Amino acid sequence: MQKKTKGLVIVYTGNGKGKTTAALGMALRAAGHGKRILIVQFIKNFQNYGELKFVKKYDCGIEIKTMGKGYVQIKGDKFPFEEHVKAAKQALKFAEDKILLKEYDIIVLDEINIALDKNLLTLAEVVELIQQKPPDLHLVLTGRNAPKKLIQLADLVSEVKEIKHPYKKGILAQKGVEY
Amino acid sequence: MQKKTKGLVIVYTGNGKGKTTAALGMALRAAGHGKRILIVQFIKNFQNYGELKFVKKYDCGIEIKTMGKGYVQIKGDKFPFEEHVKAAKQALKFAEDKILLKEYDIIVLDEINIALDKNLLTLAEVVELIQQKPPDLHLVLTGRNAPKKLIQLADLVSEVKEIKHPYKKGILAQKGVEY
Repeated sequence: MQKKTKGLVIVYTGNGKGKTTAALGMALRAAGHGKRILIVQFIKNFQNYGELKFVKKYDCGIEIKTMGKGYVQIKGDKFPFEEHVKAAKQALKFAEDKILLKEYDIIVLDEINIALDKNLLTLAEVVELIQQKPPDLHLVLTGRNAPKKLIQLADLVSEVKEIKHPYKKGILAQKGVEY
Repeated sequence: MQKKTKGLVIVYTGNGKGKTTAALGMALRAAGHGKRILIVQFIKNFQNYGELKFVKKYDCGIEIKTMGKGYVQIKGDKFPFEEHVKAAKQALKFAEDKILLKEYDIIVLDEINIALDKNLLTLAEVVELIQQKPPDLHLVLTGRNAPKKLIQLADLVSEVKEIKHPYKKGILAQKGVEY
């Protein structure tokens, strides 16, 4: 069989900690090789994330665009459902434009699986986006509950399973670990 | 229950892609908050890793010390077993000195689980190291086949499971994705 390289469709899913974190690690590694990386955050809106501070501080080829309205339909969610849908559609359109521009080597669609799971986006919309991917671009989709169809489409899929989590022992989320 | 924060013992294990990558992402996020991170590589010795290039290029609070002799007892392993043992013991001693120094907020023991699995280190040695951890330090241990005892000791454990891997479709490892 002929070995080849190509831009991959990568999915990080599962209920454990480490999905967005792995996408960030991939970004760091690729930036070391001089690649350009864009991370589009579909759900998150918190401005105190370490990764946002990092890319503001170091001009290292990693860009992050935060376009979410926070976690959907949980306690503290201040937005009507339609606002979340609108934000997700805007993020998808933004990502599509960037994908077509061919200016990046890696584009991360952070928590897009949650946007699918919460019905902010349709599977058809996301599949269509993936199909527009230029051959060399790596596209990374993160978030729990990735649909089967997405897993079928992807080249590399890792499931991050929670085996143990400190919240359950009453330890708070911590700067530099959780956000 | 009183909520508290403390330095965690974090384990990334499992057969999927994303363990070291997640540790790198955690490092990036923490560096964004101005934390100091040390990554000690127990197995790896390849100098072309994107993360090594990255930390050479950006003075961002992340240090990487590569102390391995490569993967053990695989095709292409040029070293006698004792050399691997020696390297792992040196890496452990180096990590111990750094842990006691209290100069870092996060120390990653990259692939140390493999060093355990391949009998380069004993479980007792690693447990002893963990027990010396200052209360505020986060200690991250990566690599497949983490022993049960380590999982019992840890505060946060994620298992990264391979669902799909492109090698199996004849696609080569790629810069910025795999290394």
